[in-house]
Amino acid sequence: MNYRYVAYQLGLILLVLAAALGLTTGVELVGFGWDAGERLAAAALGGATLVTGLVGAALWYGGRAKVAATLHRRDALLLVALSWLLGAGLAATPYYVWGQLGGPNRVAQVMQEGAQAGQTTQERAAALTAFDPPPPRHPFMSPVACYFEAMSGLTTTGATVLGGAPNDIVSLPHGLLLWRALTHWLGGLGIVVLFVAVLPMIGGGGKRLFQAEAPGPQSPGVRPRIRETARVLWVIYLLITLAAVGSYRAVGMGWFDSFCHAFSVVSTGGLSTRDASMGAYGSLGVDVVSMVFMLLAGVNFGLMFLLVRGRWRDALGDEELRVYLALKLVVILIVAGNIYGREIVTTAGATVEAGVGAALRFAGFQTIALHTGTGFVTADYGQWPFLSRALLVGLMFIGGCAGSTAGGIKVIRFWITLKVLAASLERSFRPRVVRPLRVGKTVVDEDNKLGALTYCLFVLILVAGGALLIGVFESKGGETVDFLTAATASLSTLGNIGPGFNGVGATQNYGWFSSPSLALMSLLMLLGRLEIYAFAVLFLPRFWRGD
Amino acid sequence: MNYRYVAYQLGLILLVLAAALGLTTGVELVGFGWDAGERLAAAALGGATLVTGLVGAALWYGGRAKVAATLHRRDALLLVALSWLLGAGLAATPYYVWGQLGGPNRVAQVMQEGAQAGQTTQERAAALTAFDPPPPRHPFMSPVACYFEAMSGLTTTGATVLGGAPNDIVSLPHGLLLWRALTHWLGGLGIVVLFVAVLPMIGGGGKRLFQAEAPGPQSPGVRPRIRETARVLWVIYLLITLAAVGSYRAVGMGWFDSFCHAFSVVSTGGLSTRDASMGAYGSLGVDVVSMVFMLLAGVNFGLMFLLVRGRWRDALGDEELRVYLALKLVVILIVAGNIYGREIVTTAGATVEAGVGAALRFAGFQTIALHTGTGFVTADYGQWPFLSRALLVGLMFIGGCAGSTAGGIKVIRFWITLKVLAASLERSFRPRVVRPLRVGKTVVDEDNKLGALTYCLFVLILVAGGALLIGVFESKGGETVDFLTAATASLSTLGNIGPGFNGVGATQNYGWFSSPSLALMSLLMLLGRLEIYAFAVLFLPRFWRGD
Repeated sequence: MNYRYVAYQLGLILLVLAAALGLTTGVELVGFGWDAGERLAAAALGGATLVTGLVGAALWYGGRAKVAATLHRRDALLLVALSWLLGAGLAATPYYVWGQLGGPNRVAQVMQEGAQAGQTTQERAAALTAFDPPPPRHPFMSPVACYFEAMSGLTTTGATVLGGAPNDIVSLPHGLLLWRALTHWLGGLGIVVLFVAVLPMIGGGGKRLFQAEAPGPQSPGVRPRIRETARVLWVIYLLITLAAVGSYRAVGMGWFDSFCHAFSVVSTGGLSTRDASMGAYGSLGVDVVSMVFMLLAGVNFGLMFLLVRGRWRDALGDEELRVYLALKLVVILIVAGNIYGREIVTTAGATVEAGVGAALRFAGFQTIALHTGTGFVTADYGQWPFLSRALLVGLMFIGGCAGSTAGGIKVIRFWITLKVLAASLERSFRPRVVRPLRVGKTVVDEDNKLGALTYCLFVLILVAGGALLIGVFESKGGETVDFLTAATASLSTLGNIGPGFNGVGATQNYGWFSSPSLALMSLLMLLGRLEIYAFAVLFLPRFWRGD
Repeated sequence: MNYRYVAYQLGLILLVLAAALGLTTGVELVGFGWDAGERLAAAALGGATLVTGLVGAALWYGGRAKVAATLHRRDALLLVALSWLLGAGLAATPYYVWGQLGGPNRVAQVMQEGAQAGQTTQERAAALTAFDPPPPRHPFMSPVACYFEAMSGLTTTGATVLGGAPNDIVSLPHGLLLWRALTHWLGGLGIVVLFVAVLPMIGGGGKRLFQAEAPGPQSPGVRPRIRETARVLWVIYLLITLAAVGSYRAVGMGWFDSFCHAFSVVSTGGLSTRDASMGAYGSLGVDVVSMVFMLLAGVNFGLMFLLVRGRWRDALGDEELRVYLALKLVVILIVAGNIYGREIVTTAGATVEAGVGAALRFAGFQTIALHTGTGFVTADYGQWPFLSRALLVGLMFIGGCAGSTAGGIKVIRFWITLKVLAASLERSFRPRVVRPLRVGKTVVDEDNKLGALTYCLFVLILVAGGALLIGVFESKGGETVDFLTAATASLSTLGNIGPGFNGVGATQNYGWFSSPSLALMSLLMLLGRLEIYAFAVLFLPRFWRGD
């Protein structure tokens, strides 16, 4: 293991994070006025910038090597895991420092009440000291909850510990809201580059079926090629983000929300600036724009790469893409039929009679949001009929396409698994018939078959194991959380989705979990984000032995 | 497809069933007095004997062929599936005829009340005609519920539609109680012979890892060899049954109950003559005897075959056996620790303070009963702490050893799957390292690896799909059964276990399900019993095409 070089690269990544924190601090300082809440946020962000910059610089400086070192497979896996683990810790500092600096509840409550009473900023700030009795504990006063929130951002999960006055999202200062959205965007970019440009080349994280522009073996020419691919992906990602900002603005969303939600949607994240998520706007335009971009963000970025290269036919003929779209279409139609004629309760608390249009709109939004793992919500789908809920849970397992920021098993693995299962049935009565198993024009080899099956089983085992541990951690006097809450909290964090059902449903949040559960779910988010293998190997003694 | 020969063999199997029915009729006629309830049962059993005999004879006669026909793989699969499908229908006739003949509720209620009031049999019979208003519908008045009960018997599941006065089990006439137990015994014998003697030779139902005495390819010598193996197995099965009868009798159980429970325990069935199952006796002796025989019945009968041949070392060194015992031991200790010091509610309604002894006894009994898929109950384990319940559900998935009458995934497949998953983790950072995967001294080939994984996934998909359909079938006005009820009903029937949790918990039954759900669960029981492939292939168009 080349620890020095790993430290060097890790330092560089943390310096990028520090730059992003610095940028956010700058925006906070010039953009959103100067009341006590925003001042505290600026201080917190500034402090976090400093800490992150120092840690990054130290690692970079300590690890710099004269020789042109190469990153081996195990070094790369370690680097990736450490980037997210340490990155989330540093990305959490603004939340935690803000929590420690002023007591967020006091600030939020006093500011709100004061503003309603017509007080000036100075008067409200003065009232802070007189505040009594102490308000309920804000999640950002717990380091574990802050880590969860940061990990949820960087892994593009979108589960939040915030919600419900006085811990509601809207009372957060602008700087922190922006930082939450930005963690999504950075994490999403990291994942796209990692899974489309880097891993297929160095071969880590399990064999990839779709290797569009990267068929070659590990070779000295790999590094420039990774850099080239990464550059194109980065530009595509940026362009989609800008298109999302423009679209949100065009349908009437404010600039700040447009930026935050664009960061969130392009990375299939899901953190919102509103407690009611997209349901807060009650706008058909916002819903449609969200649906389009969520759908797009769940597609393999490798296909967009092909599009840029002018290979339309290859991109649009992709079998995974077709299955992805077909799955969505079928489920949307069933769910829409299932909720048609019922009363839909939106996350903003309104009640809508579901005619054809409304049924399609809400069914479409929730199906796409949960399937891609974005996790935006407009309706309290936990109140929908059993069939709809069951299908949505099914899609949460499957997730979007490989090479996207979507979570879950991924459509391609699900599809290969289905084909293997079907073939195994035939083999039981025709053992000598061998039909090659194809996806598109590619024959799936035994390794990829086994890989798809093992991945499905890992996901199922981890969801079950996660639910089991959550149930144990939340046990109090023989009682514990209900089964569906534990299971979907586990599924939703492992699948990088965000919301689940019951206690973590559309109008709920993760703030009520105990610290062990939050720590566990932070791990699940990272496991899911790095497609299990790339993180789980760290727990194998063999990974650390020998070379 | 050689339909004539399939019909011929099917006819023979049904004639065996008719003989068993005839025997039960005889026992009913001479053994249990002559009151109205028993008279009706005798009539029902006699009628069923006649019908089954006629159907069997017709098939046998119609299908008899002059030439010495051979049973090909597809013929064999069809024969096996039809035996259970049609056999269950005919095995259900006593229940249904009894239901139609006299209205079981009336009989049961009037007889019980009359007996309490000191009436003679004649007086009670007369009172039947004056009974008003009509009692609630007895499950045996529904053909689907009867089919469910018969399938539950033949597949050694042990789920029952009976329970709760006036549909309670104890008010059933002796003849029907005996028939329920006998279906277990016959089904269990069929499975042992099929999976240890027949399928490994003809190669149906997926490749088997453990093929003790049957390593050879399909050859003309196969038939005598199957016959020889089957004969040994049949004797072993019979001896274990007799030992169970003697043991139950020795610890104080009556002869009738001893026979019925011996039939039930040796086949890991679970149907009991008592509504409170084994908990009705509240006897340590009964519990210990049950535990010993359940444990034994969950072991591969191929190993007992080895024991008979004097190959002790091979049998006791079997890796599957060791994992099977280790799993049990670990879970028993955890569950016992988990329930230690709590109040345990028995199925008979008593409350027991769990000291060390009681904790081990109840934990041991439920762990063994659910892991082997017997499904006897002594305690309402649904009230146990979360961790215990979760572990029990886990064992329900895994099930006993291959080549036994236990259900579930089977220990050997579970074990191979774990090994494959562990190996896949290492491959992600050492793609060129190939270690052969062994179970015992045998190297598991790619086919068996894929087979174990696909089987696990099939089980998970079928449990989920079954739960989904049950949820849909039981939907009334937007409400449906709770998630755990649907999921464990699906799991418990597919895994041939019997009870589950909540609505199908230790003190509940399946009588309240709608007919579509009961029909679905009958299918699940058969799918589980025939290890999915041997039954699921019937739904493939390719199975029926060409030859």
